[in-house]
Amino acid sequence: MRTQVAIVGAGPAGLLLAHLLAAEGVESVVVESRSEEYVAGRIRAGILEQSTVDLLRYAGLGDRLDREGDRHRGIHLQWPGERHHLDFVDLVGRAVHVYGQTEVQKDLVAARRAAGQQVVYEVGDTALHDLKTDHPSVTFTQDGEEQRITADVVVGCDGSFGPSRSALPSPSTWARTYPYSWLGVLADVAPSTDELIYAWHPDGFALHSMRSATVSRLYLQVPNGTAPEEWSDDRIWAALRDRLGHGQDGWAMTDGPITEKSVLPMRSFVQSPMRHGRLFLAGDAAHIVPPTGAKGLNLAVADVALLAPALVDLLRKDDTRLADAYSDTALRRVWRCTHFSWWMTTMLHTGGDPFDEQLQLSQLRWVTSSEAGATGLAENYAGLPIGF
Amino acid sequence: MRTQVAIVGAGPAGLLLAHLLAAEGVESVVVESRSEEYVAGRIRAGILEQSTVDLLRYAGLGDRLDREGDRHRGIHLQWPGERHHLDFVDLVGRAVHVYGQTEVQKDLVAARRAAGQQVVYEVGDTALHDLKTDHPSVTFTQDGEEQRITADVVVGCDGSFGPSRSALPSPSTWARTYPYSWLGVLADVAPSTDELIYAWHPDGFALHSMRSATVSRLYLQVPNGTAPEEWSDDRIWAALRDRLGHGQDGWAMTDGPITEKSVLPMRSFVQSPMRHGRLFLAGDAAHIVPPTGAKGLNLAVADVALLAPALVDLLRKDDTRLADAYSDTALRRVWRCTHFSWWMTTMLHTGGDPFDEQLQLSQLRWVTSSEAGATGLAENYAGLPIGF
Repeated sequence: MRTQVAIVGAGPAGLLLAHLLAAEGVESVVVESRSEEYVAGRIRAGILEQSTVDLLRYAGLGDRLDREGDRHRGIHLQWPGERHHLDFVDLVGRAVHVYGQTEVQKDLVAARRAAGQQVVYEVGDTALHDLKTDHPSVTFTQDGEEQRITADVVVGCDGSFGPSRSALPSPSTWARTYPYSWLGVLADVAPSTDELIYAWHPDGFALHSMRSATVSRLYLQVPNGTAPEEWSDDRIWAALRDRLGHGQDGWAMTDGPITEKSVLPMRSFVQSPMRHGRLFLAGDAAHIVPPTGAKGLNLAVADVALLAPALVDLLRKDDTRLADAYSDTALRRVWRCTHFSWWMTTMLHTGGDPFDEQLQLSQLRWVTSSEAGATGLAENYAGLPIGF
Repeated sequence: MRTQVAIVGAGPAGLLLAHLLAAEGVESVVVESRSEEYVAGRIRAGILEQSTVDLLRYAGLGDRLDREGDRHRGIHLQWPGERHHLDFVDLVGRAVHVYGQTEVQKDLVAARRAAGQQVVYEVGDTALHDLKTDHPSVTFTQDGEEQRITADVVVGCDGSFGPSRSALPSPSTWARTYPYSWLGVLADVAPSTDELIYAWHPDGFALHSMRSATVSRLYLQVPNGTAPEEWSDDRIWAALRDRLGHGQDGWAMTDGPITEKSVLPMRSFVQSPMRHGRLFLAGDAAHIVPPTGAKGLNLAVADVALLAPALVDLLRKDDTRLADAYSDTALRRVWRCTHFSWWMTTMLHTGGDPFDEQLQLSQLRWVTSSEAGATGLAENYAGLPIGF
């Protein structure tokens, strides 16, 4: 097989890149180790930054998002006895949108299918070759047969466990594992809040998010190593009521049937550079953030938004400038979001140290009472413009 | 002896309180375990917030400060290869002033002496009694003889090692010891910078401060347990040149004779409440901050600025409202400054963890490039108005 860009990974980063390249006349083939159903079904993030929404609209992928997505002006931040709303639109002129990654994925799959995009699912033994030449290739097995895609460029959108990341000969890596996890649940019940509630609590962080007008997405800080089975539905709802302040100032939390329950580890990871010869990395293949702050998907989209024009210039005009700048430019945003995600995470998760808890509360009070403090959170959460 | 307010500790907090009380016709006696020369000579902070300066002026203590102090619009923040100026006046409309605590102390001693203030130095065995009654007392020995001051109120301005703090029966305490110290030096050389330079460096933090046009005050992060003798003058200047970026962009650091050299531990400490019956605590007796951010003296002044009118109302009008609110009101600012001091400290001191170092650099880049980031630092560093 021969194509211009071989893309490893058919998640949102890979399919969006294929979509943006196709719009500029650059062809690609996508390979994916999982099945189409698996990729479509996995539950991930649900908050899109303004610039992510802008890009999806620009790419012709905004119709259902605009119909079914929910624009949020900001978030609620709370600790026992106090709840404060931060209005990002007032603070920085930008909103966020609630629209699940699963929905973005469906829209991308539909758009690429309509365009005749070649996506090869359920491949095995994916390997990258000749990355320092101008004819790199990707080999894999499909139904037991070995296949090869020869390309001008290979892009690794295959996450932190995929083969692309390890194809860099000697990257610098930075990593942090946090001493807590999230127990995430989906529940068939209307959200008990208009916008997300981030709650600090001595028992641990809780987050009230949502997927739609009838589906709530809820998270509880739990110790690492927790098995979902340790948390009965009753225990989950009791902890959510406690941590989210059921009964305070007349606020009530409504429970409902839990349809999905899983434990998410929390880690930060950055790999640099994000390029090696004719291999470029985008999204989780190069960086992982903890979910507090909702940056993971948005960061992947920002990578792709930089990479697509860089590859178009490289392949259509033989202009290497954007491609050469890609890693440094992308990493500026990666580190900003890595810092912000760490900051949100460490401000909101409790670990039993009383001095840390007082620091967290004084920081929360400052963020919710100082315009500079609130604006700092808002500009990071609502997201920087693409390219910054 | 009989007085209205017995003040334990003749540092800036104790003498300023005596001064503010006298202006409202409330008399006090100050006792101090050290000699007058010792208190006058100890080297401490050098940066006054705008509201500290305003208060000193209001109290008639601003003449020499206005003549000899140096108004700074902001600070420089730097890391290898980059130096950025944050202009607090532009950002939040407030400046800071360079005027050593030793100078504030001299002005206070002179003013209180001129007013006939009774200050008893070099007392021993200070003890506090009957704090839950309206006739508390302080006993001490002077020249071997036991003395007693009976008062309406006792105020502990005697630092974290004085007897007042431990007179609270069961306070809540929060503490943090940092894994590094400061080696501080005074040098007879004109500062090589117009305003303070806070420098992040992989070898450790460095700070270029100053006391006057001819005296530089310089600090280096060193490991805990460092003895000043381990650092020769040559070694100190070499480290300062490295960490402060001598030779970068034409900036040069001039060395000179080092006249004082000492190692300062770094810790955070807060005790609550700041009142027990007729005992009130102010300054270091109730809270310690690490010196990064220059909050210690300013926080003591802010305590006293709240406490003086509270005691005037209590003693002259039998109005207990401000006295009853004192601890909670003061602690709001204490925690704000405790958080800010911790934030500045942990942003600038290196500890060998590569991920932490990247977080620090990304935070420094944000603080120096985002208006919200810069404003957040500026409003905390230049200081909140008194009463907040």
